[in-house]
Amino acid sequence: MNQVINAMRKRVCDANQSLPKHGLVKFTWGNVSEVNRELGVIVIKPSGVDYDELTPENMVVTDLDGKILEGDLRPSSDLPTHVQLYKAWSEIGSVVHTHSTEAVGWAQAGRDIPFYGTTHADYFYGSIPCARSLTKDEVEVAYEKDTGLVIVEEFEHRGLNPVEVPGIVVRNHGPFTWGKNPENAVYHSVVLEEVSKMNRFTEQINPRVGPAPQYILEKHYQRKHGPNAYYGQK
Amino acid sequence: MNQVINAMRKRVCDANQSLPKHGLVKFTWGNVSEVNRELGVIVIKPSGVDYDELTPENMVVTDLDGKILEGDLRPSSDLPTHVQLYKAWSEIGSVVHTHSTEAVGWAQAGRDIPFYGTTHADYFYGSIPCARSLTKDEVEVAYEKDTGLVIVEEFEHRGLNPVEVPGIVVRNHGPFTWGKNPENAVYHSVVLEEVSKMNRFTEQINPRVGPAPQYILEKHYQRKHGPNAYYGQK
Amino acid sequence: MNQVINAMRKRVCDANQSLPKHGLVKFTWGNVSEVNRELGVIVIKPSGVDYDELTPENMVVTDLDGKILEGDLRPSSDLPTHVQLYKAWSEIGSVVHTHSTEAVGWAQAGRDIPFYGTTHADYFYGSIPCARSLTKDEVEVAYEKDTGLVIVEEFEHRGLNPVEVPGIVVRNHGPFTWGKNPENAVYHSVVLEEVSKMNRFTEQINPRVGPAPQYILEKHYQRKHGPNAYYGQK
Amino acid sequence: MNQVINAMRKRVCDANQSLPKHGLVKFTWGNVSEVNRELGVIVIKPSGVDYDELTPENMVVTDLDGKILEGDLRPSSDLPTHVQLYKAWSEIGSVVHTHSTEAVGWAQAGRDIPFYGTTHADYFYGSIPCARSLTKDEVEVAYEKDTGLVIVEEFEHRGLNPVEVPGIVVRNHGPFTWGKNPENAVYHSVVLEEVSKMNRFTEQINPRVGPAPQYILEKHYQRKHGPNAYYGQK
Repeated sequence: MNQVINAMRKRVCDANQSLPKHGLVKFTWGNVSEVNRELGVIVIKPSGVDYDELTPENMVVTDLDGKILEGDLRPSSDLPTHVQLYKAWSEIGSVVHTHSTEAVGWAQAGRDIPFYGTTHADYFYGSIPCARSLTKDEVEVAYEKDTGLVIVEEFEHRGLNPVEVPGIVVRNHGPFTWGKNPENAVYHSVVLEEVSKMNRFTEQINPRVGPAPQYILEKHYQRKHGPNAYYGQK
Repeated sequence: MNQVINAMRKRVCDANQSLPKHGLVKFTWGNVSEVNRELGVIVIKPSGVDYDELTPENMVVTDLDGKILEGDLRPSSDLPTHVQLYKAWSEIGSVVHTHSTEAVGWAQAGRDIPFYGTTHADYFYGSIPCARSLTKDEVEVAYEKDTGLVIVEEFEHRGLNPVEVPGIVVRNHGPFTWGKNPENAVYHSVVLEEVSKMNRFTEQINPRVGPAPQYILEKHYQRKHGPNAYYGQK
Repeated sequence: MNQVINAMRKRVCDANQSLPKHGLVKFTWGNVSEVNRELGVIVIKPSGVDYDELTPENMVVTDLDGKILEGDLRPSSDLPTHVQLYKAWSEIGSVVHTHSTEAVGWAQAGRDIPFYGTTHADYFYGSIPCARSLTKDEVEVAYEKDTGLVIVEEFEHRGLNPVEVPGIVVRNHGPFTWGKNPENAVYHSVVLEEVSKMNRFTEQINPRVGPAPQYILEKHYQRKHGPNAYYGQK
Repeated sequence: MNQVINAMRKRVCDANQSLPKHGLVKFTWGNVSEVNRELGVIVIKPSGVDYDELTPENMVVTDLDGKILEGDLRPSSDLPTHVQLYKAWSEIGSVVHTHSTEAVGWAQAGRDIPFYGTTHADYFYGSIPCARSLTKDEVEVAYEKDTGLVIVEEFEHRGLNPVEVPGIVVRNHGPFTWGKNPENAVYHSVVLEEVSKMNRFTEQINPRVGPAPQYILEKHYQRKHGPNAYYGQK
């Protein structure tokens, strides 16, 4: 068990440290976690600690409800959001939250990020949803937990599959992405940020632009993720 | 006394040198100071000196009225603005002025920076004010001093607390921020710049966007700064 | 033959690795190839391999129809597009495809990139076309090959010379450029990206702007590329 | 004489190499020159040579009409523009031309860069003019020389002083700046680029913004450049 958790600590530490390298965070404004449901553990960044001070050793280990098992530091304050996503979606292995600038632009604007092209279709099977703002009660009672519940509600309400649409922006807040492991979840954060920028440009250049054809979405998503995927090696 | 002032010199030098690292300045377009009211001293960047030529030793030390006590170099020409903020607000320990691009965008546009999301709420308790342009008399008689007075007037007029709203943009000019120490005041400059950019994107993506709910402002500000703050360590 | 192909491998590897240095790609989102029609070979990036893992040795060598001759790795999935461009245009020696942000903005907006100034005229003799989206059939039957055919069709339909207009954006997708060799084709990708950005700014600053005069296009293009070119050395 | 010219070669080489460091150029898209009217020489960048291949030795030395005196390389093709500015304005010692992105945005938009704030006023005494496009005849007969003449004409027509307004954008082309020496002229290029960006943001945030008050222009320009200047050291 120790070895498996140590490997998780390493992956989570590396993924957190990749956030500033990808230009997704300032200061300590983002966190990555990984879950192992068989062992019943989540590994997550400690709260408010600079990325260059992170080590595998100072990652925080909690149970599946977010109760600390190992570590002297407090976990990221967003942990309860991660917990809810792991509870709702057994298919995902890692969650990322940042305040990356372009994605926050859409979150604050309260708009879904439309499907305009193939960069989007390569990783997100359809428009990227913007979840509603939390209500006063939700914010006051259990803010971070309720953020997770609102995200899950949005996916259920729209009938979306979190494996096919690995991210969302939460209104007035910012982006959350997920994936099969920390590296993959961070990858989706980079895509979400880049598509947010591309789409801002697109609407500026052509304010009357409409979504791209559905069959392009189908093709590009499937050539990378479908049963007959042929992008990349093997 | 010498030791305390030397520590101030070091902090002020470091904070000034962090400005280009954060992308907030070009050439010599920004300055940081720190005050110690018990010792009756202000330490500030020398005027027009490149950031990479700054040392703790060439910082300028003045009294609380801005009269030079130590140093062969002229202090930043904006010193009288810093002096007025220190006189008006005993709670603040450091002031920063820059011409950072995105914040200047709002200053030149003559608009308050609206509260659209949690990145903002984490550090600024409400919209970030834009102070009026100085009058002809104010500019001609005591320009830099009057800039400070106009900032203080704006806060009094609006009933704002400088600890809760640690920054402003001055119309046709640019941003000023402050904090308990130089590192903290620079942090607020980074936040102000980032929020200025996020909000420009937000209005571009949704020109009819309105402010975020007040209870989100309350929650996010308090979880970092309230009596029961739970962000970060301890 | 081996020596010539080895030199191609080196040039193609170098050109692919220059893409992230020019800020044109994230992750593995771009590829460069070179053709030698006498030897009947194309050298191209392997699919989905990181730029810093590329070596001349792991480039993929195919015949002029894209059938693998040398290499253990799969070629870029966009190879059939490159093949069609090489078949149609005997004047070009290299093709580049990226998802560079600004050019994708125009591709997703479905607009030609207008001729507004001399930066454009120095390398593109007239507006840079936006090719139509592929039809459902084209996408489903032979997507990458059909992308090449649609590009060639667009040039024929408009009577454009691919040497004079060394690039295009494909609607809902992104930019393709070409040139006499890999370095030159990448150069055109940089120009296309930069002009895409300049023109976005231009329309933002003056929404009613019209194209620049034709005689400026003539002059700038010819002073670099005409029989009496006088830019540069020799 | 040799020593003076060698010092010029060094300054011109350094200033040219600073252009990419300031983010003002891609590839070889910019050039700096310096004049010495007593010696009757101009030193300028060779045409089309990469910045990292520049040395003081490969700078080109010409007479005041642009005839080559020393050097095996061709001078920048824009040399005739530099020559005309030196002939018209005896107060200036150096000229810079680039295709910097934000300034080109205004040049292509065909608009003067308005005076909106103090960053502008610190270096440009009033709005930065946009010169008209050249006529067909001007382009065809003596393009680069006529570019210089059109710039001078614009200043005469508007009654502007090139010392007080050290730069311009030429319609459909890009920015030219000047100064007392190469470092100073490049400085003005950086300011022009930064103000171009700030002003684009400003109009985006407030489309109905008007110019800043004239007395702010007066104050900020004079505190840096007037007889009683008090910015900087000494």
